[in-house]
Parts: sequence; structure tokens; C-alpha cells
Amino acid sequence: MFMHNKRLQYTVRVSETNPALASLMLEQFGGPQGELAAAMRYFTQALAEDDPGRKDMLYDIATEELSHLEIIGSIVAMLNKGVKGSLAEASLTEAEMYLEVNKGGDSHTQSILYGGGPGLTNSSGVPWTAAYIDSIGEPTADLRSNIAAEARAKILYERLINVTDDAGIKEALGFLMTREIAHQKSFEKALYSIQDNFPPGKLPAMNGYGDVYVNTSQGAGDALGPWNEGPQWTRIDDLSQKVPADGGDGQASVKLGAKEQAAEKAMSMRLKSDARVDPITGADLGAGPGAGRTTRIEGLHPRPH
Amino acid sequence: MFMHNKRLQYTVRVSETNPALASLMLEQFGGPQGELAAAMRYFTQALAEDDPGRKDMLYDIATEELSHLEIIGSIVAMLNKGVKGSLAEASLTEAEMYLEVNKGGDSHTQSILYGGGPGLTNSSGVPWTAAYIDSIGEPTADLRSNIAAEARAKILYERLINVTDDAGIKEALGFLMTREIAHQKSFEKALYSIQDNFPPGKLPAMNGYGDVYVNTSQGAGDALGPWNEGPQWTRIDDLSQKVPADGGDGQASVKLGAKEQAAEKAMSMRLKSDARVDPITGADLGAGPGAGRTTRIEGLHPRPH
Amino acid sequence: MFMHNKRLQYTVRVSETNPALASLMLEQFGGPQGELAAAMRYFTQALAEDDPGRKDMLYDIATEELSHLEIIGSIVAMLNKGVKGSLAEASLTEAEMYLEVNKGGDSHTQSILYGGGPGLTNSSGVPWTAAYIDSIGEPTADLRSNIAAEARAKILYERLINVTDDAGIKEALGFLMTREIAHQKSFEKALYSIQDNFPPGKLPAMNGYGDVYVNTSQGAGDALGPWNEGPQWTRIDDLSQKVPADGGDGQASVKLGAKEQAAEKAMSMRLKSDARVDPITGADLGAGPGAGRTTRIEGLHPRPH
Amino acid sequence: MFMHNKRLQYTVRVSETNPALASLMLEQFGGPQGELAAAMRYFTQALAEDDPGRKDMLYDIATEELSHLEIIGSIVAMLNKGVKGSLAEASLTEAEMYLEVNKGGDSHTQSILYGGGPGLTNSSGVPWTAAYIDSIGEPTADLRSNIAAEARAKILYERLINVTDDAGIKEALGFLMTREIAHQKSFEKALYSIQDNFPPGKLPAMNGYGDVYVNTSQGAGDALGPWNEGPQWTRIDDLSQKVPADGGDGQASVKLGAKEQAAEKAMSMRLKSDARVDPITGADLGAGPGAGRTTRIEGLHPRPH
Amino acid sequence: MFMHNKRLQYTVRVSETNPALASLMLEQFGGPQGELAAAMRYFTQALAEDDPGRKDMLYDIATEELSHLEIIGSIVAMLNKGVKGSLAEASLTEAEMYLEVNKGGDSHTQSILYGGGPGLTNSSGVPWTAAYIDSIGEPTADLRSNIAAEARAKILYERLINVTDDAGIKEALGFLMTREIAHQKSFEKALYSIQDNFPPGKLPAMNGYGDVYVNTSQGAGDALGPWNEGPQWTRIDDLSQKVPADGGDGQASVKLGAKEQAAEKAMSMRLKSDARVDPITGADLGAGPGAGRTTRIEGLHPRPH
Amino acid sequence: MFMHNKRLQYTVRVSETNPALASLMLEQFGGPQGELAAAMRYFTQALAEDDPGRKDMLYDIATEELSHLEIIGSIVAMLNKGVKGSLAEASLTEAEMYLEVNKGGDSHTQSILYGGGPGLTNSSGVPWTAAYIDSIGEPTADLRSNIAAEARAKILYERLINVTDDAGIKEALGFLMTREIAHQKSFEKALYSIQDNFPPGKLPAMNGYGDVYVNTSQGAGDALGPWNEGPQWTRIDDLSQKVPADGGDGQASVKLGAKEQAAEKAMSMRLKSDARVDPITGADLGAGPGAGRTTRIEGLHPRPH
Repeated sequence: MFMHNKRLQYTVRVSETNPALASLMLEQFGGPQGELAAAMRYFTQALAEDDPGRKDMLYDIATEELSHLEIIGSIVAMLNKGVKGSLAEASLTEAEMYLEVNKGGDSHTQSILYGGGPGLTNSSGVPWTAAYIDSIGEPTADLRSNIAAEARAKILYERLINVTDDAGIKEALGFLMTREIAHQKSFEKALYSIQDNFPPGKLPAMNGYGDVYVNTSQGAGDALGPWNEGPQWTRIDDLSQKVPADGGDGQASVKLGAKEQAAEKAMSMRLKSDARVDPITGADLGAGPGAGRTTRIEGLHPRPH
Repeated sequence: MFMHNKRLQYTVRVSETNPALASLMLEQFGGPQGELAAAMRYFTQALAEDDPGRKDMLYDIATEELSHLEIIGSIVAMLNKGVKGSLAEASLTEAEMYLEVNKGGDSHTQSILYGGGPGLTNSSGVPWTAAYIDSIGEPTADLRSNIAAEARAKILYERLINVTDDAGIKEALGFLMTREIAHQKSFEKALYSIQDNFPPGKLPAMNGYGDVYVNTSQGAGDALGPWNEGPQWTRIDDLSQKVPADGGDGQASVKLGAKEQAAEKAMSMRLKSDARVDPITGADLGAGPGAGRTTRIEGLHPRPH
Repeated sequence: MFMHNKRLQYTVRVSETNPALASLMLEQFGGPQGELAAAMRYFTQALAEDDPGRKDMLYDIATEELSHLEIIGSIVAMLNKGVKGSLAEASLTEAEMYLEVNKGGDSHTQSILYGGGPGLTNSSGVPWTAAYIDSIGEPTADLRSNIAAEARAKILYERLINVTDDAGIKEALGFLMTREIAHQKSFEKALYSIQDNFPPGKLPAMNGYGDVYVNTSQGAGDALGPWNEGPQWTRIDDLSQKVPADGGDGQASVKLGAKEQAAEKAMSMRLKSDARVDPITGADLGAGPGAGRTTRIEGLHPRPH
Repeated sequence: MFMHNKRLQYTVRVSETNPALASLMLEQFGGPQGELAAAMRYFTQALAEDDPGRKDMLYDIATEELSHLEIIGSIVAMLNKGVKGSLAEASLTEAEMYLEVNKGGDSHTQSILYGGGPGLTNSSGVPWTAAYIDSIGEPTADLRSNIAAEARAKILYERLINVTDDAGIKEALGFLMTREIAHQKSFEKALYSIQDNFPPGKLPAMNGYGDVYVNTSQGAGDALGPWNEGPQWTRIDDLSQKVPADGGDGQASVKLGAKEQAAEKAMSMRLKSDARVDPITGADLGAGPGAGRTTRIEGLHPRPH
Repeated sequence: MFMHNKRLQYTVRVSETNPALASLMLEQFGGPQGELAAAMRYFTQALAEDDPGRKDMLYDIATEELSHLEIIGSIVAMLNKGVKGSLAEASLTEAEMYLEVNKGGDSHTQSILYGGGPGLTNSSGVPWTAAYIDSIGEPTADLRSNIAAEARAKILYERLINVTDDAGIKEALGFLMTREIAHQKSFEKALYSIQDNFPPGKLPAMNGYGDVYVNTSQGAGDALGPWNEGPQWTRIDDLSQKVPADGGDGQASVKLGAKEQAAEKAMSMRLKSDARVDPITGADLGAGPGAGRTTRIEGLHPRPH
Repeated sequence: MFMHNKRLQYTVRVSETNPALASLMLEQFGGPQGELAAAMRYFTQALAEDDPGRKDMLYDIATEELSHLEIIGSIVAMLNKGVKGSLAEASLTEAEMYLEVNKGGDSHTQSILYGGGPGLTNSSGVPWTAAYIDSIGEPTADLRSNIAAEARAKILYERLINVTDDAGIKEALGFLMTREIAHQKSFEKALYSIQDNFPPGKLPAMNGYGDVYVNTSQGAGDALGPWNEGPQWTRIDDLSQKVPADGGDGQASVKLGAKEQAAEKAMSMRLKSDARVDPITGADLGAGPGAGRTTRIEGLHPRPH
């Protein structure tokens, strides 16, 4: 069961209102890398986890992320507090109000649609979606997802810190950024507390393909590194000789039943493309008097070769 | 520039049509952990990457994932080949056809809406969205995201292998699963080739909060492990004494200008909640003759305490 | 700040696993009328609310809804606990496993994609979206939205109770349903504690249109009731005489600048539709030898008039 | 069957083009609280409603909302009429055109993607989704949803009126705002014409939980009001003594079959977290020479306590 | 302004309830190719269209599509009428009700979430989105989009006709399918009434690239047809010699300012990948005692080459 | 199988960084009419296509569209290269950085969320969705969809060309625009190579409705053209006489079983609307002392008639 203490986990002191800055902060509120995504990622994992240590940790961190969601939401509410009152009371002229709601970023939507309250959107006004959550119910995969999610959140806090000079906001963001580092460390410890965590899951690699590097992108810029060379890698450069990898014909096939075959054949006949004639087309009809008007125009001609 | 060879990277041999199995396979086609998400994750990273080694690797793996998308899409197309023809030609009676499109999973939508072609949805028919992609343009975070993504994809292939006994599909899925393992290894090598990759980004942790574990979930089930105890952790159990973490008042505040204050005050007055009276409400009006009808009913009563 | 107690707000006793029933329960987990939507609706309102009484109430109920999310998520996790283990360990044959993940509803996706953990989707596998939240930052509107939301949630719990005969689940759902009733009562009291709450907002109705009922749907079935007749209503039946309502010409117009006019005219000329000729079209080209083949076919002919 | 009269329900007179203002107006066109949402909410209810009075009313109001969608769409089209022609004809220089499409809000997308036609998006460019519609097919809940929806729409029109000084637009918006008030009144009458409408649905409250207020958010700021005190409420302040509410153990449990138990046990063993050792982690590997670099930096240090 | 006549454009006679068939019908209600998408596609085009003939036609057809939406919605409501009442009244036992809501397709969600009313979703329960609408505000493109949309809708009606043997439904679907054919003809006539409609828009093709066919997919299966051979086509088979098409270096470049260069260089240094060493990775740590366990397992080994 | 050559299909030379212009370019990267949508449209069609000529063409063009996605993504990356480095290194002051990320359009999100890498969104930051893809698996419909899609993409490139004066970008966009023209031509040839392609599909039109034009929008502005008059059209102007089209009663009906009827009746009774009384409503309660306050206010009164 959840409970709530009316004090924030970190005090929020904002020096002045600024709806456009509020709009940027939304990335950590309703954005893909934000605190709701974090809380829900760990909470859904906690619900299905049976290992007592991991279950406890997931509940601990999920709950803390909810508290972070509260902090960042409070920052947004403070930054929008001016426009909220003005718009509700019509205390400015229409022309002043128009400028106030058009301060930049997504702030116009936050004002008109959400009345200055924090909407669960990112900085472009895109509503939060559970599609952001990548929990799949397997701890060696999910812990890696959590590690990565904390790394991304850390970077986003760093970017927000880099664009604001309000000392109180900067301080609160610094706290939140630091907590992501701490969480990443916990998830790392939890992952490596599971022995034999690579490859994830139970099935081993299939013989012959687990140590192969396929050099599918070629030309000037091909590079070597520990990710594609060395004793552990077999590298394939001559693609055309190795397609398909299994030595078969590289085709897709399926055995059809008799009825299925008959239907398939009828459909193919009915819809077959007659490649022998050059038909008049709708484009031919529509090309009009200017047909074939391929012209050199200023600013739109290719360079001489 | 991309090019295409008409042979698949791995031969696909399907033993018989099965639209419901096709529906499951869609998780790796248009699902959140599927091959399009993988290809687009690495491709968007490659475009903005300047480090030559990582850029090359990202193009290599992005391109291979497109080839995997082709393999899994071919499996889906083969499994749906029967229903596709039958529905187009109306070669079955309506009653037979009705059964055919209702084989299970999401197959009815794949038949009616996509005509048996592979739609870019997951196994529930949810269209693929770029919200699945978590690239943020910072390599120490993105490489961790890639490692996690490969781990998730490996698990999903393992689950699909566990639910099919078609030998040809199983073999192709085994190949694809194994390639995810190889890709994870490459991304791991690339991450650790960046020295000083933790914490990600440039800003260091804020003093005093990076080694703290906040025990927000308490009660029977509290557990200890390297993720929350040991010399590197300061652990906070007595939450109420440590809220807020900064020793302030735990409130959110903002300095308002004079006009903003006036509007805020007017709004508060206009909308203030009068807590002194107990008003009649719409629910009171609507409670009707059965008002207060709280009853013990069968199967819906609490256990005796 | 949020805290968590490891005991649930209501004990969950599930009698046996059932992934298809779990799929239905998801409506209250990640569905539009579910507990996450409730929690986030009230939480976002609480953040921006300044009235102390309402702010406290919103935090109270938001926090309780999180605890309800935990209960319903626990029910889902219990119902899926069998398939989770079997799929991870491959403890069934492929054919058995295939049946197990295809039990009905959206359970195949919950198994393959989420591994039996509760995904934040509705019963069709649609990911939760903040588009479900309708908070707009004005209390006389938001409280009405909350009242409506609780009414909807009550109905959905009632439907879920009607389709399950597992006594433990039924009991927990009954508790949750009842709490929605209590929450609706609180929101009703809070709404009517604001004097002069109708019409919502500050601007009054525009003279002459606030008491008008426009009978836009006509024919057999036209009905009368207190919503469209009586002393307070002016009713418009003769639409063609009252269009537009303002006595103008009913057209949309805008004053264009000289350059805008010129561009508009050029565009109209360039793209004007020549209504005088009957052009050959792409459909004419494509109609082929069977052109005009309008035929009476079995089961597809209109009834004789 | 629907029919259309080419005159608008209210004449639209726009004084000059303004793509950024158009962008704000989109909230009432393709936004969550806009006219399409209203029309579709009532239309879908009308289709399944059997009560003749309500069915008629729902069709009446749904049809009128379509006419409102036409009015607001016409305002948007007028405001964008300048940029539409200029962009199609390239009648401005590139630099002028660049400024013209970047006037503010979401207007750049409306110009580039929709060519100045009204796109069904909100003011942030988010496409309209049926996720905005909350009809659930039960009239005592749906009518409450409709009441709330009209209240929200009224507020949004008020905000739009507050930010525009174009007299013709203001007048049309005033008409539309007023019609929302009238619609709310109709829905209120229809709700209270159903006797015994609270609690909604058929099942009564479960004994003992319908009059309880759970004070989950505590600390300075706790407040009293008719929503949580008085003879009708039992209030729970001492949460830890009342968790769970049913007097059980507050755990979630399910009875597993023998095979399920075996698989669950195997999985737990395989994936168990070894809490006894402190493993080296990826973060440890990556911490590099600057490991432990927790530093006080300017603007990012906590206040002295 | 819109008006409504309570009679449907075509009488709907359904022979018996069937929630699973209702679920399929939703493709034409709230699906991507359904009637709401059609109505909104033409309505948004009508709003911004200035050509009088096209504007009239677009309003005519948009309005008719709304009437079709009403027909298909009525079919859905009839098919769900049984489950709607039973679920509301709990007139079946829980076990019977459970079977009733799990009849197939998406019917469980339509019952539990929408109460048997027609939800604006497709047959997989995915909510309708304006992302389905492809209007861009240019008539030679939009009319082509409309032609294509009618063609798609025709096919979907044909598929629905093929899976139902209810004569009344079949007849209504036949009517709707036929109207799509008529609409396509109108749009074709309107397109070809614009002289010089190809290429669409005002800018001509850029010299040298408009008649080129790039054979990017090669290998067995390469085919010839009027779309890639004949006097009007220049065909490129030898890709590696023609990349890039402009004779440049095929690289992407941008001129950076001095500050930008400095930051870029600093970032590259800080994040550079050290390709000279083979680092220990997280995967190496996690590979455990079974590291390198690449094994031949039954059913998961490649074929011998 | 796909392969990649590190040279672009067309060289990209950007003259200076400009994040706001980058934001516009995203329409062709992750927008509904952009290159990913094109590539995936043709790729999914290719997978299920059996006709060898069309299959080859679809793979050819799908693959080229991926190369176009790479070009437009490279343009975006170049335009954002300045902000990417500055934000990562914090090489500007906070105030400068704040201005840099707020340059216009959606650029703030591209900087903060994606770090200057190209996100798969449109110019409003909306993530790409497979809902943009309209393939349905029938070639005479899909080819028309492809023709329309190429027409739309051509127009969008033209608009982008009209708003930029960077010669290198203009040139690359001109190339891409021209390739869309060429692709449209190929798809037209392929469509008309299928004989008897209209109406699409196999079922003929239903007798009596295929040549009818229903004039649903009436009043001043009614227009004639080849799309609604001439020998091939039967035109219906007198709608009220022709509703329904089939001569039935225009009602929707279904035969219910006995149990269904009983439940339906019970539900109707329980929820019937009592139209005889005028109930007090929640709005009446809330109208407060200012009830009925319909006032003439400045700027919000209707014109005198």
C-alpha cells in the first residue's frame, strides 16, 4: 500500500515563473525518459517478481521515482503559476494574454489545454504512453533495461541543468540526476548478483552464429574494433557468398493444402501483372500539355559531375 | 545507401499455414521488442554518431536487423498464405471463412485489415510506434540501451521457440535469437571501449546523494543485498526524519510578480472551497429511494476479521 | 513524498491461474477507466491546486488509487503465475505451451511480450496513454470529470464481478468497486463546496443561446423531456429558418492582404476544376472488359421495394 | 441519416490571417476536449441507447457538435488562408516563407504537413484519438461523463476567448461556449430523470467500505471538509493499523498446480539473486580513473542544512 | 450545418446477436479504412477547399460517409445487444457470462469496456486515430488519396461480406461496398477535371532523375515490366558505380562555427572509442561458469551445408 | 537481405546549422508522409506479394526509400550538429544554451530528448506510427495507395524546398522530390498492367447503387460537374424521399433470444428516463446566487439581426 507525506523529497525553490522552461521540464514528467516511465517500469516488475531481494528493491526504487515525479511536477506547477491565474481571471488584455501563452516550446498547449497544471506529456505535448515501458518479465533482461533507463534519465537531467540558470531548479535537478546514478548502481549490483546472467534466458546460442560479425555496411569508413575483430569473432565481409547463412536457397516457402493452392492460383491469375504491354496510365492522362516538363530551374539543378 | 539481395539471410521453411501462430510472430515484426525497433534504434544512432568505429558498427547492425525484419516478415507471410488466397477468392463458404479468420490471437485483424500480409503491429494488433525507440544521442547511454534491447529480443525469441513445433520456423528463430546474442556482445565491447563511461555524461554526482539508498518500501519483506548495503551505501530507513533530503521545508515555492499575485488571489477567492457547510450534492439527489443501500450480498462480503 | 508498505490495502486470494481472466482484469490496470488513469488524474490536479482542502483530498485519493493499482496488478500477476514459469522454463511441450498462451482475450500478448508480468495495457493490449486523463486545471470542471470517472470505474468493476466466480477475486473487486463509490461522494462534496459552480469558469453565457435546444435530429422518434422542453427552453425545430443562428450569411470569411489575395487567385486558377468536360479517368482505363459489370448476385441484391 | 446545409450554424468573420492563432484554435477541432470528441462521444452513445428520449437527445446534440466542428474548422481555415496560398504558389522568397511558417505554436506543422488545411490535431500537433472518448455504455455513468465534458469544453472556449482580440472570432467562440452550457443543462436534466442514479449501476456498495475516507496523505496540510468528515464518514488516519482493510495478511496468493509449482521453483532457482557477495558490475568496470568523482560544483551543491 | 434524419440510409436487419462478428465489423467503424476515417478525410478537405465544385462534392460525400458510419455502428449495436443487457443485469451466471464475453476477436473488450456499445476501435481494439487521415491540402494529391481510400474500403467490405452469412448484414454491407465504388468514380472525375495534374504540385521534376529506375534489389527474381523498362526509363543496375547519383563524394557535411567546432571536438575526445584494447565487458562478467556454452540442441541446430 | 554502402545516394552539403529548419525536415523523416512510411509501405507489400514483377518492383522502391530516409536523416543530423556538441559539453552559458534549444518548431524536443540526433517524429514531435501505413494486401488497392502516397510526398518536398534557401539542402530535396515522381510513374504502370482493375477486388457493384450520386449537402453552393451529373449518374436531390435507399423502414433491428429479451427489458425498466417530471439537477444546485446570469458583455454579444 502506498502512503504520502506532504513534504517533497527535495525542496523546490523557483525564482520566477517561465512557461517555456516549464515546457522543457516536462521531458522528466510525461516524457519517454521521465519519472512516470521510471516508476511504472519498476512497479510492474515488482508486481510479478518472486525473488525477495529484487522485489523489495524494485518497490523501493519505484516508490522513490513517484516522489521524483512529484518534485518535477511541482517545478512545472511553479513555473506555470503566473499564466494559470492570469488566464483563469482574464487579468491581462487579450493581446498580453496571447503573448503570455505563446512563450515558446509547448507552453501554449500547457496553458490552453491544461490551464497551467502539469499535463502528462513530453516537451512537445505528446501524451505519455505505456509504450515507453520495456519491462518483459525476465530479470536479466529487465535489470539491463533498468540500467539503461537510469543512464538515459541521468543524461536528460544533465541537459536540463545545462539550459537553466535558476539556482533553485538547478539544485533540485542536480539531486534528481544524482539519484539516477545511485539507482543505476543498485540495478548493476542486482544484475551481477544473478550468476550466469549472459546470455539472458535459458536457451544457449545456436551453434555457429553466436561469434559471427556480419559486415553489412561497407565502403570507405569500414572500421575495426573489439566489437568486430579479435579471436572471438568470425567476420563475414563477402556477403554475397554467405547469403543465406544456412546454405539453403534463401527463399521463403510453405506447404499449402489443396484448397489453399487452388485459391492462391486463382488469385494470381486474376491479379497477374501483364508485363508485355506498356499501358496508358492515370499519370499519362494527367500529364497534360506540360507533360515531360523536366526543366533546369534555379537552385534546383544538379551539380555538374 | 541501402541495397537488397533477393535471398534471405536465412532460409525460411514453413511446414503449414497457421494464422494464429503468425499473430504471435508479429511481436518480432511490429512489436516493441521486434526487428523494426532494433533497426531504427541503431540506424538513428548511426546517423548522428561521429566516432568512426561506432558509426560503422551501428550501420552494420542496423542493416542486419532490416534483414531479420525480412526473415520474420516472410515467416508471417508464409503462415498467412492460405487465408490470404481464400479470402481474396471467396473460395470457402462464409461459415468456413468465418472460422478461418477467427483462428486466435490477432489473426482476425491480420486477415480482414491486412489481407494476410504482415501488418506492422504486435501480437495484439497495436501499430508499431517510434515511442518504442529510446535513442537519446549519447553513446554511453545509447549503448546501454542497445545492450538491454538485445537482451529483451533474445528472451522473446526464446519464448517464441518454446511455443512452436514447426521445425523450419524453430530453426530460423534459433538463428535470429543467436544473432541477438552476438549483437549484445558487440555493443558491450563498444561500451567498455569508452573509458570512464560511468556515470554516463559529463556532470558528476551531486555531493551526498550518490551513495544513498532510500528504503521507501517497508514492512515484512524488507531485504538486504549488495544493492542496498555494504560500505558503499548509506541507507535511509527512517524516512520521516529525512524528508526532505535537503533540510529545507519540503515545500514548492515560486516568486510571483505583483500582477501574477493579484490574479492568483482573485482566482483562489473565486474558487475557494467552503469547508464549513455540508452541501447537498448531485449524488444526494440521485441516491433515490434506495439511498444508503449498502447490503451484504452473496460472494461480495468481506471475510470476518 | 510517497512511501510504501508491503502489505496490500486488501488481501488477494486467487483460487487458480487463468491468463484469459487476467486479460479482462487489465481494464482496471492499464485501461482507460483503470486505476493508473485515476491515480494520475488526481495526482496531476493535486500538483497545481492551491486550495488547501482540495489539494489534500486529491493527494489522499491519488495515493489510494496507486494502492488499488497494486491490488489489481497483484490479481493479474497471480492469474498469470502459471504461464510465467512454464514459458520461462519450457516445462511444457511446444504444443502444450502453444495452447497455454492462446487461452483467450489478450493473454497471448501478455505471455509472449510481458512474460506473464502485468503490462500496462487494457484488455485488448492497447498501451495506456495519458490521453485518457482529462484534467484541465479548473476545479469546477475537473471535479465533474472526477465524479464521472469514478462512476465509470464503478461500472467496470461491476462488469468484472459479473464475469468471475473466483470468490477471492470477487471479494477484492467488490472492495475496489465500493471505494469508487466513496470517492465519488467525496468529489461531489468538494464540487458543491464551491459556491456558484455553474456554469463553470468565469465568463457568463452569451445572451440568447444558453436556453436554446436545437432539434437537429428529426423524424419518427423525436421525443420530449425536461432536457428539451419546459419554461426554461426555447426550442428550434425549423432548422432551415434558423441557420445561421446569428442572422448573418452563414459563410466563413477572412480579409486577405494584397499579396495573399494574389497567391490565392493564382492557386485557384492553376488548380481549377473544369466542370464542362467529362474526362477519361484512371477508373475508366482500369474498368477493363468487364466494365459496367453491375450484376445481381446471390445474397447481395437489394430487397424489392 | 445525416444531411448538410452549406450555411454555418454561426457566421464566421475573421479580420486577418494568423497561423499561430489558428494553432491554438485546434484545441477545439482535433484536441481532447474539442468538438470531434464531443460529437463522437454522443454519437456512439446514441447508437447503442434504447431509451427513446435519451436516444433522441444524444442524436440532437451529436449532430449539433458536428456543426460546431465545422465552425471551428472554418475559423482555422480562414486564419491559415494566407499561408496556404503563399506556400502553394511560392509567392514569397524562401526567407519570407520560412518566417511565415514559423509564426508560433504548431503552425509550422499545419503549414508544411496539412498545407494550411485544418488537421485533426490539438494545438501541439498531436493527432486526435478515440482514446479521448470515455463512453462506456451505461447511462448514469455516460451522462456524468457528458456533463463533465461540456464543463471542460466551456472552460477551453473561455480561455480561447481570453487570448484573442479578433471581434468576429470572439463572437463565434462566445456562441460555441454558450452552447456547451446549454448542452450541460440538457445532460443534467437527463441524468436526474433517471431515478436512483447513485451509485451508478446495479450492484450496491460492499458493506463497510462505502463510507470510509482513507487519509493516505499526511503531514502539514491535512485538511477537513465535508468530503472527509461529518456523520457520514468513517475516517482512517492510522494507516499502518488498517492495512489491509480486510484483516487478512495483505499478501497476494494463488494456488498453483503441481506442474506450475515445479516450473516456478526451477525458475526461482535459476534466477535467484545471491545477496551474499558484492559482485563487480559493469558500472564498476566503467567508472574509470575518475571513479568516485563526487564533487562539489558551482550551482550544483546542496544548501547547508 | 449538419442535420439528422432518424431513418438510416439503408435498413439494417440482423438475424441474431454475435459479439465476435461485431468485432470484425469494427474495421469499418473505428478502423483505419473505416467510415469515420472517410468522413473526416473529406470533411477536412472540404473546409479548406476553395474550388466551388470540389468543395460541394467533398461535403456531399463526407456527409454520406457519416451516414455510413451510422449504418455500420447500428450493425455493431445490434450484434452486441444480447451481451449488453445480460452484462448490465447480471442475468447469466458468472460462468455463462464469462463465456459470453469471450466469444472471440476483440469482443471481450467491447463488452467489458464499452458495455456492448460500439467503441471507435478497429477489430483489434485499437482506438481510432487521426493519423489514419492523409489529407495534405493539395487537390491533385488529396484526390488521389481519396481514390485509393475508396479502393481500400471497397476491398474491406468485400472481405466482410465473405465472412458472414447473415443475409441482412450481407445486404447492408453490399450497399456500403457499392457506394465506395460510386465515390471512387466521383473522385476520379474530379481529379481528371484538373488539367495538368501530373506531376502534382507546381515544381517540375529535377533534370536527370525523373525517368530513372534504380534497381536496388538484385538477384534471382529480377523482373522487367513497363514500370522499369522501355523508352521512357533509364535503368541503373550497377549501383556501386552510381552512388551517389550526383557525382559528389556521397558524404554529409555541414559548416560549423568556431564555437561549434570546439564543442564537437571536445565531445569526440571525451567519448572516443578506444579500438586498440579488448576490454572486459558486463557480458564477460555475467557469462558465468557456463560461458561460451554454445551447444547443439535438438530442434535448434542449423542444417548441414 | 539488405546491404549498405557508406556513400549516400545523393551528397548532402549543408551551409550552416539550424535546429528549427531541422525540425521542419523531420516531416520527411518520421512524419506521416515521410520516407520511413514509404519504405515500410512498399516493404510490407513486397513480403506478401506473389506476382514476380510487382514483388521485384516493390523491393526495389522500398530499398531506395530507405536510402532516402538516410539522406533526409543526414540533413537533420547536420543541421543539429551545433546544438548537439554544445549541449553535451555545456560549452555555452545556461542563458545562451536556453536560447539555442528554443530556436523554433520542435527543435527544443529534438535537442533535450534526442540530443540533436534525428528522432523518428514529425515536425511537431509526434512519434512515427505504423498507423500511417495503409497497405491492405490487395494490389489494385495498394498500388492506388502507393500512387497517392508518392503524390503527397512530392508536394511535401515542394513545400520544404519553398521554405529553405540553403542551396545544398535545396538540391538534395529536389533530387528526392524528383524520385517520388519517378516512383509514382512506376506504380501507375504497374496498376494499369493489371487488366480489369476497377472496381478493385472481385465482387461487382450491387445493382442500383453504383451510379447514384447522393446530394447530401445542399443550399447555396450546390455545383455540377462530371463527378455528379451526366449520363452515367443518377442523382438524388430529394433526400427525405429516398431515405432509406432500400425502401425499408430505415430502422436497425435484431432478433433476440428469450433470455436476451428479458435482460434487455429489465435494463430498460431500471434505467428508464422519466420524462414527466422536471428534476432538480446538479447544475441547479451549483448555479448559485448568480444563477441565470446571462449578460451582454463587451466583445461577446451577438450582432443585431
